[in-house]
Amino acid sequence: MYIAMNRFTVPLENAEAFEALWLGRDSHLKEMEGFVEFHMLRGPEQDGKVLFASHTVWRSEEAFRAWTRSEAFRASHKGAGGTAKLHEGTPVFEGFSTIQHIA
Amino acid sequence: MYIAMNRFTVPLENAEAFEALWLGRDSHLKEMEGFVEFHMLRGPEQDGKVLFASHTVWRSEEAFRAWTRSEAFRASHKGAGGTAKLHEGTPVFEGFSTIQHIA
Repeated sequence: MYIAMNRFTVPLENAEAFEALWLGRDSHLKEMEGFVEFHMLRGPEQDGKVLFASHTVWRSEEAFRAWTRSEAFRASHKGAGGTAKLHEGTPVFEGFSTIQHIA
Repeated sequence: MYIAMNRFTVPLENAEAFEALWLGRDSHLKEMEGFVEFHMLRGPEQDGKVLFASHTVWRSEEAFRAWTRSEAFRASHKGAGGTAKLHEGTPVFEGFSTIQHIA
């Protein structure tokens, strides 16, 4: 399993608009081979900023890579200009591979 | 849903020992009310350091808080001295609440 996260630092005064824009977007993930699930997460607040993270679980890193090369990926990110004004800098990507699973 | 992550910065030369210690420990999570699943994750490498993250999914933040006050939590963290020598500084905790789920 592979988890792809993008971390967004959002000033507190933009948090509500940032959430609304994310929740209103078109997601094309469900059509993708190897997609398991997606969560949009709200994390800790610090110094007037909120950490948000998109959190997508894929069956493998290969499935994630195929998504980043797809037409659906381009379509999903066309609207990214709207949220870009609401967070600081660029989102920070982190990809994780599972080394242990307990369920 | 609530995701509790702890981020560990591990020098590359310690990564193998760090993984081995984690995989060999006793986990008491399965006994806990509200526990959904646990992943130990290996993330990106940068400047000779590897980002590891423990990643626990709970039904709610309350379930997570109850775990941190439990006897099982203390028992699980008794052995933390062993991994502490292998990572830099203290682990950085981040708790996340779900604002959207697509599956």
